Amino acid sequence: MPQTGQALVRLHEHLHQTRLLGSISSALYYDQNTVMPAAGADWRGQQLALLATQLHERQSSERYADLVAAAEAEVEQAASGRTRRNLQLLRQELERQRSLDPQLVACLARAQSRGNAVWQDARRNNNFAVFQPALEELLQLRREQAAQLAPIELAGRSPWEIPAQPFEPDASKDRLQELFTPLSAGIPPLLERVLSSSPAAAASPSTTAAAIPEAHQETLCAELLESWGYDPARCQRSRSAHPFSCTLGPADYRITTRVVPDQPFSAFLATAHEWGHSLYEQGLPRGDDHYFPWPLGEATSMGVHESQSLFWECRVARSQAFAKRWHPRFCRALGSDPWGGSHPFWRGLNPMRPGLIRVEADELTYCLHIVLRFELELALVEQGLPVVELPELWNRRMGELLGLRPQRDAEGCLQDIHWAEGLFGYFPSYALGHLISAQLAETMEHELGPIESTVGAAQELQLQHWLGENVWPLGRSVNGEELVAKVTGAPLSASPFLRYLSGKVDRLLESA
Amino acid sequence: MPQTGQALVRLHEHLHQTRLLGSISSALYYDQNTVMPAAGADWRGQQLALLATQLHERQSSERYADLVAAAEAEVEQAASGRTRRNLQLLRQELERQRSLDPQLVACLARAQSRGNAVWQDARRNNNFAVFQPALEELLQLRREQAAQLAPIELAGRSPWEIPAQPFEPDASKDRLQELFTPLSAGIPPLLERVLSSSPAAAASPSTTAAAIPEAHQETLCAELLESWGYDPARCQRSRSAHPFSCTLGPADYRITTRVVPDQPFSAFLATAHEWGHSLYEQGLPRGDDHYFPWPLGEATSMGVHESQSLFWECRVARSQAFAKRWHPRFCRALGSDPWGGSHPFWRGLNPMRPGLIRVEADELTYCLHIVLRFELELALVEQGLPVVELPELWNRRMGELLGLRPQRDAEGCLQDIHWAEGLFGYFPSYALGHLISAQLAETMEHELGPIESTVGAAQELQLQHWLGENVWPLGRSVNGEELVAKVTGAPLSASPFLRYLSGKVDRLLESA
Repeated sequence: MPQTGQALVRLHEHLHQTRLLGSISSALYYDQNTVMPAAGADWRGQQLALLATQLHERQSSERYADLVAAAEAEVEQAASGRTRRNLQLLRQELERQRSLDPQLVACLARAQSRGNAVWQDARRNNNFAVFQPALEELLQLRREQAAQLAPIELAGRSPWEIPAQPFEPDASKDRLQELFTPLSAGIPPLLERVLSSSPAAAASPSTTAAAIPEAHQETLCAELLESWGYDPARCQRSRSAHPFSCTLGPADYRITTRVVPDQPFSAFLATAHEWGHSLYEQGLPRGDDHYFPWPLGEATSMGVHESQSLFWECRVARSQAFAKRWHPRFCRALGSDPWGGSHPFWRGLNPMRPGLIRVEADELTYCLHIVLRFELELALVEQGLPVVELPELWNRRMGELLGLRPQRDAEGCLQDIHWAEGLFGYFPSYALGHLISAQLAETMEHELGPIESTVGAAQELQLQHWLGENVWPLGRSVNGEELVAKVTGAPLSASPFLRYLSGKVDRLLESA
Repeated sequence: MPQTGQALVRLHEHLHQTRLLGSISSALYYDQNTVMPAAGADWRGQQLALLATQLHERQSSERYADLVAAAEAEVEQAASGRTRRNLQLLRQELERQRSLDPQLVACLARAQSRGNAVWQDARRNNNFAVFQPALEELLQLRREQAAQLAPIELAGRSPWEIPAQPFEPDASKDRLQELFTPLSAGIPPLLERVLSSSPAAAASPSTTAAAIPEAHQETLCAELLESWGYDPARCQRSRSAHPFSCTLGPADYRITTRVVPDQPFSAFLATAHEWGHSLYEQGLPRGDDHYFPWPLGEATSMGVHESQSLFWECRVARSQAFAKRWHPRFCRALGSDPWGGSHPFWRGLNPMRPGLIRVEADELTYCLHIVLRFELELALVEQGLPVVELPELWNRRMGELLGLRPQRDAEGCLQDIHWAEGLFGYFPSYALGHLISAQLAETMEHELGPIESTVGAAQELQLQHWLGENVWPLGRSVNGEELVAKVTGAPLSASPFLRYLSGKVDRLLESA
């Protein structure tokens, strides 16, 4: 904050301590998911709950409201745009916190925790009926939450849109439908082309490559990070059951990966993905910890965050030029070349096959999984779809979109954790990530030349530099769509992503 | 707590939350020393300071004082001895916290932090003059602290004794002198015997054994822990620059080790040592987390804690029977036998050579390093020794006690971190650990037979069982000396330790 008025200084101090507490919580989460022994879970849960209570108190107290109001009064006269934007975002979040009945907040926390437990059980036993009442309760609570928030939201924002705001600020379902309709129309024909071509092009990596020993996978991941600017003085990579990325302080960035012995690309691509998230975090406009606690220093949306991880995973690590450079290293790690050359190795990195499971989906089919979930969330939250009918509708739409029908709900509507934790409105961000990544990449290529050429010359740091100049420093000064418009000069659209997919399918089939 | 009076329940809830916060602090410390990237240090320091402030507030507030007073009033009528003891210990700690001027507490914290930084610099540059003013300030602040605490301490407790109470409850300098005098008298003749015998017996491991590759040292440590009851569901072992053990929750125990490539026993013996600390923590009378926050569930003194780590490091892992069993494993790890048999291997585990550095000292000479520091602390805190004269006095006494004279203060009075952090009164606990371990071991042998036989039969879990029956469950129901008297039927004395050392020297020289 450039201003040094007393009220702003006091507000900064408050936000700084809030961020300290929040990052303590993140540190405990990181420990929990990397090294904590299993029996520590109960105590850790109590520690996290204690911090959550403190955080909520700090973010909704009268004292905090007074600090925000005083800062607003102080800056009315002569404030920079950045300061006003910071205060607007703080005010918005404060109003959200204060609009919610504390009893509802507590009910939701309990229902989320219960929902998670019941879902684990339901998925394990492939028993939707066990999960149904928990999901009904969560939907009801989210509708109540939307109703409590409605008075401070934009007029006309719907019960599905309101809980989606924290993930994707200013998102609307009409706009999402506008963006996703071309995907439902454009992807199935591409998939058809792939499936009707030679089976080699559609082969999955597991059929074309042997297992790479754990230690060698670790080495490949470490080499990848080193070549992409990983700084061990500020970063740490650990192992966890599910890969994630988190920021523990203004100069403390962690990523995790897991090694799946018989999936030679799993850890490698996950490392590229999580490092993309981390690069965005490292490039946010924080300067030093002075800026760390302010909203402008935060990621603007889950969709933009995902665009950064997908860029490094899909546009770079799955590119043909990258495959050509890394194929020899993979062969060295393996002691042989089970792919039979760098072209089939590249095809191994880019399986194009419909499957039932979202988190295992490839670039081509991934967004159809999201379209399905977006439709069903709208049906559940706003259109009165009885929860009991969810499995059947899921299975039918899966058949229509991807040509596959789950035989078990565990592979169908029970596969994701999101709804079990009451997260409605989150899924679209994953698809937005693909669209945003593709549109930013077109502009990047317009300015720097083809990504394939830059990657072929091992100049990925040029790509980082471009993102570090044009994307990361925007923080929350703009929302996701505004960011795209500002950087690319055009409104977000599905066209760049569909063009990219179509080109990639062409090249994969050519070389098959 | 068996009682369920309302005041006790409320006090329990308060203590529970205090312990949650304290253990969050420990978790951050663990992360900091195992995986945190270096640049994260500043933010981490701010997180820890925030938690320290919260903890201090919880432990000294009016609200807490009221809770303790209400519980005291409630239990007056019908309380178990355990409840009364818990409340006594809480009252004592509360009075300590409330006797201290908050300004002094803040001054001390700043001086400790500055002292640490200045000491790092002074040690690196072998420049005592840089450190001198920091040490003078810390001594002055500790004297002030002792003066503020004096009214609530036992009448006549001295300025050195008062800050030592938290480490070694009820310790007095007269009693320590009584215990240590036999060491200053008894150890030098034993050392003389070793030094005048064949050089082989006094050889250090580095001259008799090659380096063991890191991965093999890790494997040996893991095998050791597995054979000593390490449960991965409750425990986690990591790497850190300096080995330590910590408890992060009622079912979450961590230990760390470091591998020093050219010191084949360093990681192995440190693992035995830290696991000894952890076993004590795991055996404290906590039952489940219900008992976790009460004083009775804590370790009673640093001396007793150290006795447990030294027992497993020195009495077990450095024993002849243990060496015989593990020699083949070390040879396997190394691919050869550089020791030439299990007897020389055992001698390698037991170097008996005077050295300048405390943390590298062997069983025979270690306590002389402590005697030196104890004398000098008394001189500094109570007898008016000018700080400027410390280096010369250190060097002279080092010559008298160990026959060696440091050439540089970095190897003399600048070697330890304790004084730089204002920790006066801590060192004696290390020597008490040796005495307590030896005296407990005599009683254990009286009941179970020779430790050498039990270890020879690979029955170390019997030793754990004995400690788990007789020592660990006592918690803070007794102080360190009372614990020894209760378990062994005799007051603590240096004789068992000197008997043990003498016997060990005999056997080492026999086999030389």
